[in-house]
Amino acid sequence: MNRKLDTFFYPKSIAIIGASNKVDTVGYRLLYNVKNCGYEGAVYPINPKYTECQGLQCFSRVQDLDEIPQLVMIAIPAKAVLQTIKECAKFGVKNFYIISSGFGELGAEGKHVEHDISLFAQENDLNIIGPNTIGFINNGIKLNANFSQSGCKDGNAVLISQSGALTSGIMNILEDSQVGLKLGISIGNACDVSVADLIKYFNKKKDISQILLYLESIPQPEEFMQACKDSDKKIICVKSGRSARGAIAASSHTGALASTDTIVDAFLQQCGVIRVNSIAEMVNVAAIFSTMEKIPMTKNVVVITNAGGPAIMTVDALSELGLNLYEFSDEEKDYMRSYLQSQASVKNPIDMVASASIDDYKKTLEFCINNDKIDAIICIHLYIMGTTSKEIASIVDSMKEKYPNKMIASVFITHLEEMNEIKQTIKNIPIFESGEDASKAIKQSSQKFICSREKQRKIRNTNIDKIFENVRQDNRNLLTTYESLEVLKELELPLVKFDLVKDPQSAKNVANKINYPVVVKITSKTISHKSDVGGVKVGIKNDIELIKALDEIKNNLKSHNCIDGLDGFIIQEMKSSNREFVYGIVNDAQFGLCSMFGLGGIFVESFKDVCFKVLPTSNEEILQQIHSLKASKLLGSVRNLPCADIDKLVDTMQIINNFSLSYNIKELDLNPVLIDDKTGNISLIDARIKI
Amino acid sequence: MNRKLDTFFYPKSIAIIGASNKVDTVGYRLLYNVKNCGYEGAVYPINPKYTECQGLQCFSRVQDLDEIPQLVMIAIPAKAVLQTIKECAKFGVKNFYIISSGFGELGAEGKHVEHDISLFAQENDLNIIGPNTIGFINNGIKLNANFSQSGCKDGNAVLISQSGALTSGIMNILEDSQVGLKLGISIGNACDVSVADLIKYFNKKKDISQILLYLESIPQPEEFMQACKDSDKKIICVKSGRSARGAIAASSHTGALASTDTIVDAFLQQCGVIRVNSIAEMVNVAAIFSTMEKIPMTKNVVVITNAGGPAIMTVDALSELGLNLYEFSDEEKDYMRSYLQSQASVKNPIDMVASASIDDYKKTLEFCINNDKIDAIICIHLYIMGTTSKEIASIVDSMKEKYPNKMIASVFITHLEEMNEIKQTIKNIPIFESGEDASKAIKQSSQKFICSREKQRKIRNTNIDKIFENVRQDNRNLLTTYESLEVLKELELPLVKFDLVKDPQSAKNVANKINYPVVVKITSKTISHKSDVGGVKVGIKNDIELIKALDEIKNNLKSHNCIDGLDGFIIQEMKSSNREFVYGIVNDAQFGLCSMFGLGGIFVESFKDVCFKVLPTSNEEILQQIHSLKASKLLGSVRNLPCADIDKLVDTMQIINNFSLSYNIKELDLNPVLIDDKTGNISLIDARIKI
Repeated sequence: MNRKLDTFFYPKSIAIIGASNKVDTVGYRLLYNVKNCGYEGAVYPINPKYTECQGLQCFSRVQDLDEIPQLVMIAIPAKAVLQTIKECAKFGVKNFYIISSGFGELGAEGKHVEHDISLFAQENDLNIIGPNTIGFINNGIKLNANFSQSGCKDGNAVLISQSGALTSGIMNILEDSQVGLKLGISIGNACDVSVADLIKYFNKKKDISQILLYLESIPQPEEFMQACKDSDKKIICVKSGRSARGAIAASSHTGALASTDTIVDAFLQQCGVIRVNSIAEMVNVAAIFSTMEKIPMTKNVVVITNAGGPAIMTVDALSELGLNLYEFSDEEKDYMRSYLQSQASVKNPIDMVASASIDDYKKTLEFCINNDKIDAIICIHLYIMGTTSKEIASIVDSMKEKYPNKMIASVFITHLEEMNEIKQTIKNIPIFESGEDASKAIKQSSQKFICSREKQRKIRNTNIDKIFENVRQDNRNLLTTYESLEVLKELELPLVKFDLVKDPQSAKNVANKINYPVVVKITSKTISHKSDVGGVKVGIKNDIELIKALDEIKNNLKSHNCIDGLDGFIIQEMKSSNREFVYGIVNDAQFGLCSMFGLGGIFVESFKDVCFKVLPTSNEEILQQIHSLKASKLLGSVRNLPCADIDKLVDTMQIINNFSLSYNIKELDLNPVLIDDKTGNISLIDARIKI
Repeated sequence: MNRKLDTFFYPKSIAIIGASNKVDTVGYRLLYNVKNCGYEGAVYPINPKYTECQGLQCFSRVQDLDEIPQLVMIAIPAKAVLQTIKECAKFGVKNFYIISSGFGELGAEGKHVEHDISLFAQENDLNIIGPNTIGFINNGIKLNANFSQSGCKDGNAVLISQSGALTSGIMNILEDSQVGLKLGISIGNACDVSVADLIKYFNKKKDISQILLYLESIPQPEEFMQACKDSDKKIICVKSGRSARGAIAASSHTGALASTDTIVDAFLQQCGVIRVNSIAEMVNVAAIFSTMEKIPMTKNVVVITNAGGPAIMTVDALSELGLNLYEFSDEEKDYMRSYLQSQASVKNPIDMVASASIDDYKKTLEFCINNDKIDAIICIHLYIMGTTSKEIASIVDSMKEKYPNKMIASVFITHLEEMNEIKQTIKNIPIFESGEDASKAIKQSSQKFICSREKQRKIRNTNIDKIFENVRQDNRNLLTTYESLEVLKELELPLVKFDLVKDPQSAKNVANKINYPVVVKITSKTISHKSDVGGVKVGIKNDIELIKALDEIKNNLKSHNCIDGLDGFIIQEMKSSNREFVYGIVNDAQFGLCSMFGLGGIFVESFKDVCFKVLPTSNEEILQQIHSLKASKLLGSVRNLPCADIDKLVDTMQIINNFSLSYNIKELDLNPVLIDDKTGNISLIDARIKI
């Protein structure tokens, strides 16, 4: 929703329902903070118990006020909240911040009340944040409207957190960092105003350039994605709960590999959101966006240092992150030799040795800044004697003022006290405690996202309609193998030759038409895992072996007591390959249809080398999905095997995606997807479709 | 060497050669620190330029002193150092600390001088640390003998660092942590006293319980390993230079996969050293060893918290580290429900909600401490209102005093200032800034090492002797394929059937004896990569195909112009398998013979799923090597394939190890090592041995 939230976050008047005189209660602290933070608007304590509260006149009800407050904050027991909102709304109040807890976080009953609040808000065009929050701060108007002691300095970031405690915790941590907040918002259970609504609102704010998110769930993924795609802000997100296994039943292969978190990862990538794994990482990346306007795509990095050890560790980190150490030409080295001390090393890292002077730093920095082939500079100083880190910090800072578009990060290995002093005074350069932190933040801040989401192409096919119709008439949801293969055939996907037979004679006819060796497998309405009941025979070389195989399979089915659903036998061209992949579709409870491409064969479980995408996807995203596998090397020319036909592979995956969306299928497994050892062609052999 | 270093590190008198009155020189700062740190021994400035130095009587030469100083520290230009040592030694000085730089770090000439110093030290039974150091501190005798401003509080750790700057940097960081140092030593280029010597010396010190190492190289690996194995101290090591590619020529398969760092990793593991990747990690692990006597093997962890967010992130970290969340029984939950607030969650994490009282923390901690099934407790507090983090810290601390053997780590998410105050006052509990840090440190501190190194079993075999003799007589260092296979046969390893033939008739005889299908491959004194010249034919089904294959191979060799070295053809049983591994031996320039076990086939390069060990190895270590592969799951029963014969695999690897050591071979590749699809038996097919 496109909400107008200016009067909400920049209110001229605030009423606090539940304001209190009792120290160490929520109502006391909330009023105390609003009253004593420098906020210039009107503040109205509301509590029928008092006529005066913390020195202010106290009112029994909002309706008793002479004006309609632009924002009402509510800190009273949960059960009274909805009624209070109704009364205030009748009086004309539009904006509510519910501090009170005791709602959805406690269970179904609380969720129910939240639902009622949300309905009331929609019907009456209200904006309600919460419940279960600690409030918010807005440094733009010097407003501290949270009941904890936290707050932090002004800046270009906004923080939105689903955890109340962490809203406070993160603000405490930011206060000791270079990152300032314009607003810090505890959004709580978000029964009305959503994270997506807030992102949309802040997208329009010019004084905000980054949005920090702490999320434990992503309730409206489509709106969230749209808000992120429409944003020109940098969005940095900690999404916790990585280890929790998802709600997807592991009945399909793809489902078994889809932990919720791998899909969350894919989703945030597709949103163009920088996902970080800890508050510390969030602060480090935010420090870059707090000090720099434009972030270049970083490839070539130079490390400038006065100490070898930390530089070596930085190089280790850069290399592990896939960043490149710029190689100086002989001319460039000669130039640096001309002014640096004789023991200095002019390779990269440039080790100017312990006694490096301010001038050494200045000249070397300027030299690297003016080299367009260098994307980022990590400037390390470790005090031994002589020049202090504070002096170096101020030099680097002033260089950056002169050259604002170069990525320069500074690392100081020193006492907390000096470090803190540096962080509070240096405005133009992000400061880090180690080269590893600097390297990681540079990498994370200059990620390239492929968010070119394509509109779905509708697929309609009357033969497929008929197959699905038959399945539904049988009260099944799983297609037989033959039906699944027929669907793939209708989609004109690269299937091996196959046909359905019911008796030995037609089996022989088909096998001879296809050419031996062939595979025989059952197609059945009742059996989903064919191999488990001895329903597959491979490498059949002639008619005699074929007849024998059919007999054996029948006997196997009889002994497993499952011959009833048998629909016939599929005779199929025999194909094997050294390169087996899998492709699949799952319907995630949260994100809807998602695709998975992965390494197949016996290696699936060992390496879990898979990549998910939330549908729909563009061809570019599919290419990225393919290439993000470690095993994607195998699609190239390896060990005399030819390159895979990548165009055909992308095409196949895109058709499956569009088909899955068009028919809203439940699960789909293509296992295996073979890359032909001689031609590199794609071959599909087996499919399993659930509708 | 077992050095007596008591008078070195606990000297009663120190002479400083190069002491100076010029502020901001090394000689000034060194004397200044020694003089003003509270050290009670005698201090003698030595400098022919002065009669008085910083208020002390200054002497021209050490020989002018009335006593022989127990330690002489040298801070004069490099070129004068050796002569000065000689003169002091003649006077009777035994212990030297060379601060001066300008030696091996600058190149060959400096290395030469270091070598002369080292020889002189050996001949005259001296102890020399350095050159290229910043000095050392010994908090045990209040001695600060380094020329930087750093120092830190007393404690149970010793720091040994190859980087001078980082000796200072790490001490600065430790000062803000809970970790105290007994000694901090900058060892520099270590021309005489080695890291191994120092570890051996500190192994005997009762007041030291942990040794922190910052290393950029490991010069005498055997001595180092022995010193570590003999140690009952905890040894934590940052070994930087992880990304540098090793000196091993990539002529063998195993060599190509052996970056120096993978071997360093294996080596430190086998030493029982805890390898960490950053100074921050080192400090975190050291904080645990600074506050705890005994570290339990950690499996089951409980998280106690008053805020959900940080607990969820902790659970994410624990799960990624493979640690387990303890599951409370219904009875245990009922007990906690009996005193906690109604909104509290009594699962694990135990979320006692924002308003948790001191008493809630106390009771819950005590309850978890007394549960023997819980190995570690992570106790999180985030201040919102009411109880402060400082109060909680002191409660946890006192609980730990009562129950010293339980692993309890505490996490506070707060301002730096309060954090620092907590760290400086809490003595019994390691304090962390995040649950992720706590989890990682717990995991790293309770690692189980398999260091049960076995003595090598000598292998002597006269037939192998003869093969090697022939190779040497030919001036070759690479065995032919046939010779390599013959060696494996002599070692009674599980080889497929094979024989050498020189003509078509004997080829047919052998093939019929082995049974078709067979493989034909050349064995040649000049060709090492058989496939590249068309020297291998697989899947030969009968006599006709065999004759054709021999002809084709000969033609291939002719067209590649390399028929000359041909020794004949190997006819070999045809075997293939879904499970291919590789085993190999390399001779690392630094660590000597190392073995590699890895996943084979076309996946080698994509996954680099390999594990190295430095030889010799015990069977236990070999088992660990096998099981540390991700692909080790494939050795179990997967997809109807039988379990691999692990005993035979270990046996094979052990024989290869002992053979390689006994014959001091240069390189060995067993590629592939097949696991039979039907039996799980081990089969070797090809070998390449370089001597």
